[in-house]
Amino acid sequence: MEMLTINNVWMMVCTALVFFMHLGFSFLEIGLTRQKNTINILFKNVFIICVGLLLYCLVGFNLMYPGFEEGAAGFFGFAGFGLDSPLTAEGGLDLAYNEGYTYWTDFLFQGMFAATAATIVSGAVAERIKLSAFMIFTIIYVGVIYPIVGSWQWGGGFLSTFQIGDAEGFYDFAGSTLVHSVGGWAALIAVYLLGSRIGKFSSDGKPQAIPGHNIPLAAAGVLILWLGWFGFNGGSVLSADAAGTSLTLVTTSLAAAAGGVVAFLVSTLMYKNYDLTMFLNGILGGLVGITAGADQMSPTDAVLIGAIAGAVIVFGVALIDKLKLDDPVGAIAVHLICGIWGTLAVGIFGAKAGFDQFLVQGVGVLAVGGFCLITAFIIIFVLKKTVGIRVSEKEEIDGLDGHEHGMDAYPDFRLNQH
Amino acid sequence: MEMLTINNVWMMVCTALVFFMHLGFSFLEIGLTRQKNTINILFKNVFIICVGLLLYCLVGFNLMYPGFEEGAAGFFGFAGFGLDSPLTAEGGLDLAYNEGYTYWTDFLFQGMFAATAATIVSGAVAERIKLSAFMIFTIIYVGVIYPIVGSWQWGGGFLSTFQIGDAEGFYDFAGSTLVHSVGGWAALIAVYLLGSRIGKFSSDGKPQAIPGHNIPLAAAGVLILWLGWFGFNGGSVLSADAAGTSLTLVTTSLAAAAGGVVAFLVSTLMYKNYDLTMFLNGILGGLVGITAGADQMSPTDAVLIGAIAGAVIVFGVALIDKLKLDDPVGAIAVHLICGIWGTLAVGIFGAKAGFDQFLVQGVGVLAVGGFCLITAFIIIFVLKKTVGIRVSEKEEIDGLDGHEHGMDAYPDFRLNQH
Amino acid sequence: MEMLTINNVWMMVCTALVFFMHLGFSFLEIGLTRQKNTINILFKNVFIICVGLLLYCLVGFNLMYPGFEEGAAGFFGFAGFGLDSPLTAEGGLDLAYNEGYTYWTDFLFQGMFAATAATIVSGAVAERIKLSAFMIFTIIYVGVIYPIVGSWQWGGGFLSTFQIGDAEGFYDFAGSTLVHSVGGWAALIAVYLLGSRIGKFSSDGKPQAIPGHNIPLAAAGVLILWLGWFGFNGGSVLSADAAGTSLTLVTTSLAAAAGGVVAFLVSTLMYKNYDLTMFLNGILGGLVGITAGADQMSPTDAVLIGAIAGAVIVFGVALIDKLKLDDPVGAIAVHLICGIWGTLAVGIFGAKAGFDQFLVQGVGVLAVGGFCLITAFIIIFVLKKTVGIRVSEKEEIDGLDGHEHGMDAYPDFRLNQH
Repeated sequence: MEMLTINNVWMMVCTALVFFMHLGFSFLEIGLTRQKNTINILFKNVFIICVGLLLYCLVGFNLMYPGFEEGAAGFFGFAGFGLDSPLTAEGGLDLAYNEGYTYWTDFLFQGMFAATAATIVSGAVAERIKLSAFMIFTIIYVGVIYPIVGSWQWGGGFLSTFQIGDAEGFYDFAGSTLVHSVGGWAALIAVYLLGSRIGKFSSDGKPQAIPGHNIPLAAAGVLILWLGWFGFNGGSVLSADAAGTSLTLVTTSLAAAAGGVVAFLVSTLMYKNYDLTMFLNGILGGLVGITAGADQMSPTDAVLIGAIAGAVIVFGVALIDKLKLDDPVGAIAVHLICGIWGTLAVGIFGAKAGFDQFLVQGVGVLAVGGFCLITAFIIIFVLKKTVGIRVSEKEEIDGLDGHEHGMDAYPDFRLNQH
Repeated sequence: MEMLTINNVWMMVCTALVFFMHLGFSFLEIGLTRQKNTINILFKNVFIICVGLLLYCLVGFNLMYPGFEEGAAGFFGFAGFGLDSPLTAEGGLDLAYNEGYTYWTDFLFQGMFAATAATIVSGAVAERIKLSAFMIFTIIYVGVIYPIVGSWQWGGGFLSTFQIGDAEGFYDFAGSTLVHSVGGWAALIAVYLLGSRIGKFSSDGKPQAIPGHNIPLAAAGVLILWLGWFGFNGGSVLSADAAGTSLTLVTTSLAAAAGGVVAFLVSTLMYKNYDLTMFLNGILGGLVGITAGADQMSPTDAVLIGAIAGAVIVFGVALIDKLKLDDPVGAIAVHLICGIWGTLAVGIFGAKAGFDQFLVQGVGVLAVGGFCLITAFIIIFVLKKTVGIRVSEKEEIDGLDGHEHGMDAYPDFRLNQH
Repeated sequence: MEMLTINNVWMMVCTALVFFMHLGFSFLEIGLTRQKNTINILFKNVFIICVGLLLYCLVGFNLMYPGFEEGAAGFFGFAGFGLDSPLTAEGGLDLAYNEGYTYWTDFLFQGMFAATAATIVSGAVAERIKLSAFMIFTIIYVGVIYPIVGSWQWGGGFLSTFQIGDAEGFYDFAGSTLVHSVGGWAALIAVYLLGSRIGKFSSDGKPQAIPGHNIPLAAAGVLILWLGWFGFNGGSVLSADAAGTSLTLVTTSLAAAAGGVVAFLVSTLMYKNYDLTMFLNGILGGLVGITAGADQMSPTDAVLIGAIAGAVIVFGVALIDKLKLDDPVGAIAVHLICGIWGTLAVGIFGAKAGFDQFLVQGVGVLAVGGFCLITAFIIIFVLKKTVGIRVSEKEEIDGLDGHEHGMDAYPDFRLNQH
């Protein structure tokens, strides 16, 4: 009883921290984009949290933890609509559900994760996507696609038992693949189908910087995300186990720090100035990178994984530009590329390292990637051909805030008069 | 011993979260008001926290939990000035005080609540109230009125034992009435006695929008408030009880999400654009609405209570405008109207539903409303006739920051030059 | 086992809160300085967190808790590079390390403290220090000097056993001296060697106000710091002990509140307007002041210590101006002067009060002050004579953001057009 209560307290704290990440994502995204689209971005983010949670209650939770039936091959299952808490004979909540937390905590912690996938996409498609299309996409992707992928591993599906040689199944501790790359693959497709913002590439194809409007908020967003990751990774231990949780916080923080420092050093060498945005994205890359194996790494492993993620970010952002993909906040480099890196790193560093495990990790990356690419493509392509996914040229130039929301982000902001 | 320590850890976490709500309120209020009054608003909010806590230490805690004497009829009691911690024979803190937390945690958690009532008023009277008058009002209302009302229920007073038929006493889990409506009633009186801001109503009485200056901060404020509500409601379980706390977090979050989505849908139907402010106020309405019964509801109940609160907000804001009351942040609709709704909802939904309970809830609403209306009227009316409650026309037009504080909120803010 | 897990959960929560203080420091510093140096300040702060943590992992932790050898006289020790977790015979983490937390939690909680010292300096030297010099200074001061000083007391060194008469050793609960004054002394030296910003003192030596650019963020920074202090002081109990932690949160909050109110009253009397910045600095002064004895004080003691700190701040800021030292954020008054006050207050108020203890506290202040002054002087003086510590006049006037970072803080910020 004591142990359950302690574990549950920790999991609730982590749930709150993961919720708070949504403020981090919002700040990061509005900070790195133009003022004229700020209301639109805030609206998307608030929508994602609210609708994500309601959908996870309605279908997501039971898609993700369906208790797979025999014939399903661990690929698809659904335990029914709504929440169905286990009850004792007297009608109270059955606390024997789990030693780590109650049924309610389980739902809410996982529900806070679900919305994250759509938030990642939100950043990549910012400043030009039609709000209605984005809302429909979010409903389908967060409500159905994310939990199905999640069920393959965390729901006890086929990836969790997939074997190659000695390797005992795919391993993705807190979601480098199952959360971050799920968002990242959809971001890639969406950016491809949407096209780049007006002015992002010059007539000869060279990328042009489109600076954001509020870097202090972007920096605050990254620090809030780091804080939230204490819950994202720390809660993924699924109990308050003292050794497991505290090691996880150490590896998480060290990877973040190493990612930031290396991204700063590499970008300083390449671009000859101290680039704050790269430093910040390096931190996020380190965090995404360590997420798949945060409980399996030594501090040294964590520093190495984070450091490599930091370098990957700098080249990844350049690569996305080179491919003429327009990702205003660097979401694809951070969440997709570093998500893949982190997943593979489980086979290279730490307690699970080994060539067989590396191969299994690769299979997981491909399986999830294939499914997400196809489903995201279908959803967004259908939206493109029906409601349309892109705002008009006039609306894009004027800004989405005025057209979609009839509102400025800073309507009464004035220069001081003296 | 273990159990006390766990409970106490959870209560301290919740205390910290409730404290953090003050940043949420501050961001919301400055975001939705004009730049020229920003320093004034921040000053009021910081003042409220500091003075509220000191007063709660000096008198409030002992007014709220007086241990009513026989003849007091559960209406008024006072256990003396200052804090008086229970001691063991050896002089250490007596931990037998309570199974859920220590004496110190009890004081601090309740103290963080106390300041909230004044914060609600602060938003409604923003941009025109005289700071000195507001400070005096705060001292009396937070120091004396709030704890007296609280004593009626949480201090074991007459509301807590009030019976009609089968109903076993008024129920207000975390303060839809005892906190939110206490602030809301005073806000109503204050707004009425103050009058509207210059320009809020045209000569033919039509309400004019006076847009705020920093919507990103307003949105951040709402997300911070949602986070804080995990502590506000989660801590009101008064222990770390696994089933109770985790159900409470689930109902709280679902009500917030449903409130936001419904307010967005209703306002989109009515006003034909995606109104972020309504979405945000819908979230707050859902949170206030679930607060009275967050531990008594199923997830479905919570969604319904939140959804109705979301609709109520849209019509409530319109109603306040129609009544020619000028409430810059929508505090009356959010905290008073949804506070009443949430209190009554305890008699309609969930474990305590029943007609008798509904009547008792109504009695509680009326008793608290009557007392708050009268006392707030007396305090503010006397202030109006003595020190004055409204700044001069010139000061209002110029902004309060320059006149009262000799300071701008963004004194060095510059447009970029390129 | 239960007890260790509870304690460890509390310590992890506190670790997260101390981490979050870095956002508070960042907001406070950018808020109180000019827009043109915002990116530079954010860069410094993010650098400090990341590099501070990596260095604490590499050398700091083992310098601070070296397990002093016989001949070292508790003055200097080093337990080797990197982290070296205690293992059980089976190779798992040895949980017998400590009853309050695991080895990993110990490292991370202490590591979060380490970066704070440099952050304090960062505020004082803002708007004119050369980034490269600041980075080198940070590496040495956070990596080596801070942990050596810490080892004298928290590592079991000579201060922890220093006796005068009845006094049983120096007492500094959470670091009024060991953290705040360590940063404060270096800030004093750095400000002296750097010189004041262009325009800070008129030709006749009168101080000129150089207003910051974003007071809302500064206010948010202070509220975030207060929140973080729940972890800074609450975690310094080094367990979840119910009586100790909850008393600490009460004294911490009351001192903050009293500091703010007194600074507001004194500054209103002196300067005839309601000065928000003084109110905010008073809160910080109260927090720094209570830090040395937060677990030893009654609520009344805490209010008195905070109140005196609040007054000290107002006069301290004026004194620093008078000495022609240019400290843009008031870091020296807050962290050094109130740090000294709080350390001495342990000998005046609360459970350890006594003349002998007062003398021991003074010895601690002097020992730490002497060492920090000398080492900070050597580091910064050598930097001044080699790489240089101050940016060019042109760079200072243009702002550091453009020159060092090629970036504006709000590049796309526009006035609204209507």
